[in-house]
Amino acid sequence: MSIAEAGEFGLIARIVARLDDGPATLLGPGDDAALVAAPDGRVAASTDVLVEGRHFRRDWCTAADVGHRAAGANLADIAAMGATPTALLVALVVPTDLEISWPEELAGGLSAEAAKVGASVVGGDVSAGPLTIAVTALGDLGGRAPVTRTGAQPGDVLALAGRTGYAAAGYAILSRGFRTPKIFVEAYRRPEVPYAAGAAAAQAGATAMIDVSDGLLQDLGHIATGSVVGVDVRREAFTVPDQMRDAASALGVDPYLWILTGGDDHALAATFPPEAALPPGFQKIGTVHEGTGVTVDRTPWTGGTGWDHFR
Amino acid sequence: MSIAEAGEFGLIARIVARLDDGPATLLGPGDDAALVAAPDGRVAASTDVLVEGRHFRRDWCTAADVGHRAAGANLADIAAMGATPTALLVALVVPTDLEISWPEELAGGLSAEAAKVGASVVGGDVSAGPLTIAVTALGDLGGRAPVTRTGAQPGDVLALAGRTGYAAAGYAILSRGFRTPKIFVEAYRRPEVPYAAGAAAAQAGATAMIDVSDGLLQDLGHIATGSVVGVDVRREAFTVPDQMRDAASALGVDPYLWILTGGDDHALAATFPPEAALPPGFQKIGTVHEGTGVTVDRTPWTGGTGWDHFR
Repeated sequence: MSIAEAGEFGLIARIVARLDDGPATLLGPGDDAALVAAPDGRVAASTDVLVEGRHFRRDWCTAADVGHRAAGANLADIAAMGATPTALLVALVVPTDLEISWPEELAGGLSAEAAKVGASVVGGDVSAGPLTIAVTALGDLGGRAPVTRTGAQPGDVLALAGRTGYAAAGYAILSRGFRTPKIFVEAYRRPEVPYAAGAAAAQAGATAMIDVSDGLLQDLGHIATGSVVGVDVRREAFTVPDQMRDAASALGVDPYLWILTGGDDHALAATFPPEAALPPGFQKIGTVHEGTGVTVDRTPWTGGTGWDHFR
Repeated sequence: MSIAEAGEFGLIARIVARLDDGPATLLGPGDDAALVAAPDGRVAASTDVLVEGRHFRRDWCTAADVGHRAAGANLADIAAMGATPTALLVALVVPTDLEISWPEELAGGLSAEAAKVGASVVGGDVSAGPLTIAVTALGDLGGRAPVTRTGAQPGDVLALAGRTGYAAAGYAILSRGFRTPKIFVEAYRRPEVPYAAGAAAAQAGATAMIDVSDGLLQDLGHIATGSVVGVDVRREAFTVPDQMRDAASALGVDPYLWILTGGDDHALAATFPPEAALPPGFQKIGTVHEGTGVTVDRTPWTGGTGWDHFR
């Protein structure tokens, strides 16, 4: 059945049937607005939009994959503030000739990814048009101060939770028409976001934190600029996995290009005071110093700098 | 300058320059997530998406108009829960060849409409693609219970704050290639939403409430279904303004079609216990009774039922 045949309310009913309430859902889909618990008296909120052909391709990803990716990108932003995600709202624009199973499976992916952190899809809107998914995530800080991009201090340790380069490798593999190695293709389709590391970093005294969505060096540039510091990444902190080395070699790419500038894995990069014990999941990858900008082994990086969505 | 020339971060900087912090903004644009006050310990949240060619046309509305419309549609959803809007997040998809003044003026319109209720734009995302605007609004209930669609009781009074038919008249006028009467064209471009009536209705004991976005009869249908009641609208409760009568006559339309089934004015329809004093701005337009569905003068309406975004 096409979406045109189901109609707007038929589509909404089928999407809502794929959603579950989470613990923070006080009022779920079906009214003018949802109602979400915000026990902290503040709510963290972030929005990301995915456009077909630019952020995903239907021949590379299932609808469920796109749901996982869209939810993951947003939930990671909440985690990067040191908050715990509570809810998602989804604006979905779909072509009317699309099979209705596509948005149903998308909703299933969104819901399943949110459930990993105890969050749920609480509301949204649908319209006909070119396939586009805008997701807003809400989260709760649990009484903690938010970890922004502006608090890094010279002398701080730079640490990373999660991985980088995997989704970029998967993208490169898919771009050349391959489907393996699976580990990278799956990393591109459904990023493994270290959600719990966000609140753990805040509890451990992180001074600054960012979701690595556009590429490690580019995103660290936001911390450098926001905190008015220099950030140095040690290349030797990254071990290139054998499979990545092989894939990079086969494609004629330097694997450090993926690791240092590849986006979409949604690792969390954070800075900690030198005396802080790094929380589980984080490993040291560099240092913060007086100065400006981002360097690799104290040398400016000249190999490309991540993603501009308009270029 | 085109958006492609400005680049992603140039575009974001120009948009953010048009935004002001509101009283609920604890952390505004520029980090992974915004932080908004939720003093009630709960947050109301709603999302609407507008697609060029379907929800707006650039030759009918300025960018600022589209900003007012997009913000108004979302803020009205928050008001319809009995809550006070606090913040907007905006996902904006724009063609790269668009002049950068367009999203700048859009941001100005969004910000200005939000400022009417003391809210502000706290975050968002941009991407290249077909022109699409998804807005999420947040709001605070101030300790009140939410006014849903499910609480109407037989014997309740049906009342309306704001106007209906004005935006539909404006749409019809623009569709025929006219630009006047201004009052209707402007109502379509920038709806006058009775925001304060939402919280006032909650305080006055409203049993159910809805934002009239798709057409009065269709939206009342959601209250009838949700509350398992019948809703009857009295046609004589609506006076057709002379200008509307003249415009309808010139276009060969029954003005009650606009009033009863026209969307986009974002009036608030609410039900109140028979003994409640209607708050300022509301006037009685009908009654709630045992039964099902929506009637006009106790007769089924046969003149069309509002808007399905996929048909």
